[in-house]
Amino acid sequence: MTRLIDELRKLPGIGTKSAQRLAFHVLRSSPEDAEKLAGAIRELKASLYLCSICNNITDVDPCSYCTNSVRDRQTICVVEEPTNIATIEKTRSYTGVYHVLHGTLSPIGGVGPEQLRIANLMTRLADADEVILATSPTTEGEATARYLVDEIHRAEPRIRVTRIATGVPAGSDIEYADEVTMSRAMEGRREI
Amino acid sequence: MTRLIDELRKLPGIGTKSAQRLAFHVLRSSPEDAEKLAGAIRELKASLYLCSICNNITDVDPCSYCTNSVRDRQTICVVEEPTNIATIEKTRSYTGVYHVLHGTLSPIGGVGPEQLRIANLMTRLADADEVILATSPTTEGEATARYLVDEIHRAEPRIRVTRIATGVPAGSDIEYADEVTMSRAMEGRREI
Repeated sequence: MTRLIDELRKLPGIGTKSAQRLAFHVLRSSPEDAEKLAGAIRELKASLYLCSICNNITDVDPCSYCTNSVRDRQTICVVEEPTNIATIEKTRSYTGVYHVLHGTLSPIGGVGPEQLRIANLMTRLADADEVILATSPTTEGEATARYLVDEIHRAEPRIRVTRIATGVPAGSDIEYADEVTMSRAMEGRREI
Repeated sequence: MTRLIDELRKLPGIGTKSAQRLAFHVLRSSPEDAEKLAGAIRELKASLYLCSICNNITDVDPCSYCTNSVRDRQTICVVEEPTNIATIEKTRSYTGVYHVLHGTLSPIGGVGPEQLRIANLMTRLADADEVILATSPTTEGEATARYLVDEIHRAEPRIRVTRIATGVPAGSDIEYADEVTMSRAMEGRREI
């Protein structure tokens, strides 16, 4: 029992109380249900990996984006999490490949460059023309983008490093834009 | 009573029912309160005008933005409504002048170019280097921007016409960006 509670406590957002509650639930459930949960955990780890090229979650390594010959491998879009890939794919306008950092720099949260998957991004730069930094325009996302642009330019000065636009969201009235967003929308204006 | 109801019904968002309710409120209120309301309406019209240069609401004509010698008159920022000026002023980064259209093109709503204050924008172009189209990234705002860029380039091809950036708002996670916004954020990416 103590062993299960200790293991459950390692999960994000699960404290000692929640871990105890979950462990008691397992204790009360049928042997089949307990076996199903254990099996699902084991199977997930046995069948899903992180792509060795881009760190996306995948059941084959390298992942389908990295092996798709139609996609442009000279353009790498850097995102925080695997779920961000779906957000960008939905636009149906991006045809390059991806690189998943699995987080953002956060000095307060104890996340430094070593905790992110930056090392295998650097090894991919030799083949790249452009790196699009598509981290969120949050404090952590901006700090991560600033760190990466310096690292990439130090390693490969010829690479074009770009940042996605911050601005007024499509369909929204500028009346509802906060001043930072409005300021960035004005700075980022483009000739039409 | 019918005359007041008819006048109140002309206000935006006030139907017959609301107009009746408001009229009854006036009927029940003291003569002083009714006089104050009538006086405030009369005074507003007597003391506030639209600036003859930029169409902003003002108590002196031309308005304080148009007569401020520190502001850059070669840059004109076109907005939909007078309230949008406050949104842009809050950024403390814009030093040009403004032009208020008082609406957006809306074929369904019966608003064509003649209903907007475009004529006195065209007369200002001779002195301008850049026109920033800061209409909202809504359907109507985009249609208005497209119409204006054609008109401005026809009249003065040398003018740089720019559009504010559409993108992920500052502080927001890209996870919550809809596909049109994400698509525009990718298109509008800039080298850093």
